[in-house]
Amino acid sequence: VENLEELPIDAPAQKTVNLYKVDNYTFGTKQASQKQHERNPQRLKEKYQERGLRHSVAGVLLVHHHRHPHVLVLQRTKDAGSFWLPGGRLRPGEGDLEGLSRKLDNRLKSPSQERSHWEVGDFLATWWYPDFSDNRYPYIPPHVTKPKEKLNLYLVQLPESCAFSVPSDLQLLAIPLFQVFNNAEQYGEVISSLPTLLSRYHVNYL
Amino acid sequence: VENLEELPIDAPAQKTVNLYKVDNYTFGTKQASQKQHERNPQRLKEKYQERGLRHSVAGVLLVHHHRHPHVLVLQRTKDAGSFWLPGGRLRPGEGDLEGLSRKLDNRLKSPSQERSHWEVGDFLATWWYPDFSDNRYPYIPPHVTKPKEKLNLYLVQLPESCAFSVPSDLQLLAIPLFQVFNNAEQYGEVISSLPTLLSRYHVNYL
Ligand SMILES: [Zn+2]
Ligand SMILES: [Zn+2]
Ligand SMILES: [Zn+2]
Ligand SMILES: [Zn+2]
Repeated sequence: VENLEELPIDAPAQKTVNLYKVDNYTFGTKQASQKQHERNPQRLKEKYQERGLRHSVAGVLLVHHHRHPHVLVLQRTKDAGSFWLPGGRLRPGEGDLEGLSRKLDNRLKSPSQERSHWEVGDFLATWWYPDFSDNRYPYIPPHVTKPKEKLNLYLVQLPESCAFSVPSDLQLLAIPLFQVFNNAEQYGEVISSLPTLLSRYHVNYL
Repeated sequence: VENLEELPIDAPAQKTVNLYKVDNYTFGTKQASQKQHERNPQRLKEKYQERGLRHSVAGVLLVHHHRHPHVLVLQRTKDAGSFWLPGGRLRPGEGDLEGLSRKLDNRLKSPSQERSHWEVGDFLATWWYPDFSDNRYPYIPPHVTKPKEKLNLYLVQLPESCAFSVPSDLQLLAIPLFQVFNNAEQYGEVISSLPTLLSRYHVNYL
């Protein structure tokens, strides 16, 4: 019987990602973030005039259920609207890894946990926003000289188990890759492209 | 003025891909390949019963025009139907890199050129075919235990210039990334997902 996950005979080394069962993690609630989660074009425009190109980061956190990868996404509790990856805007001068760790703490760290260590791994993709709308592209569109925002995605290797704690106005969901694939209508282009971006990894189901 | 292409301050090193102008390359014609380019479910089924999982490879060859990346794709000359990346099925026991080089020779090498050297680089993505239709997924769908075909995509770094020679029943086209993005209807899912897969590279326009 052929091992389906075998490496191509003479190919470059394939990267491995370790996925643990969703049951290894607990999902609790902490105080609401009171943050606005929607893009507000007028506010984005004012910030752009102050600070220029906005740098954002997001983390791709994976678990498995019955040996199929699931991605952790956030959604508002109130109206079950759009989905997004944990992350957000960097502070001026802040680095990607520093900012992503701070955002993951905000969104996911238990308040009882003193310190956090997020194992931020590979750079997966970049999305560019040419204007203050939700439109985004994985390249700078031709004739766009001043994109307004750049979103960098990173793979985050989760520990074998941990306790997540999510602001009460948000919920954290583990969505199977087969559900987000080809489903930009429901999950948006950033999340729906994850199955393809992750297909180059050898998945180690633990 | 901020350099848009700058690296994130503390991020892992970003990979670079060198793109040369499309005008650096010439595109000629050689004898028709007489091969069947469409997927034939009955024939695929027979082959599967003989040989098991079919291993295929394809190359992502990039050029630029006015500093926007373009991908080289093939199309039948006759009826201008579907598009595909240069590549094809491996022989039994053949490695990915060996097979991809052979296929790139078949499709693109000038007959006057004695030897070829294709610089096959990063592994970009895998697509799985659970049956003998055109359906494919960047993961093995749950409950599929015997996928029928696995397609591995590799980035191929082109030389600064060269003479391509294409079988006369095919044409080679350089399609801008902005045209294939979100355009699975025209280009298929494999090609339309390339902009997102390539967004993690720093592009060096030469
Ligand atoms: Zn599940
Ligand atoms: Zn279960
Ligand atoms: Zn062009
Ligand atoms: Zn030109």
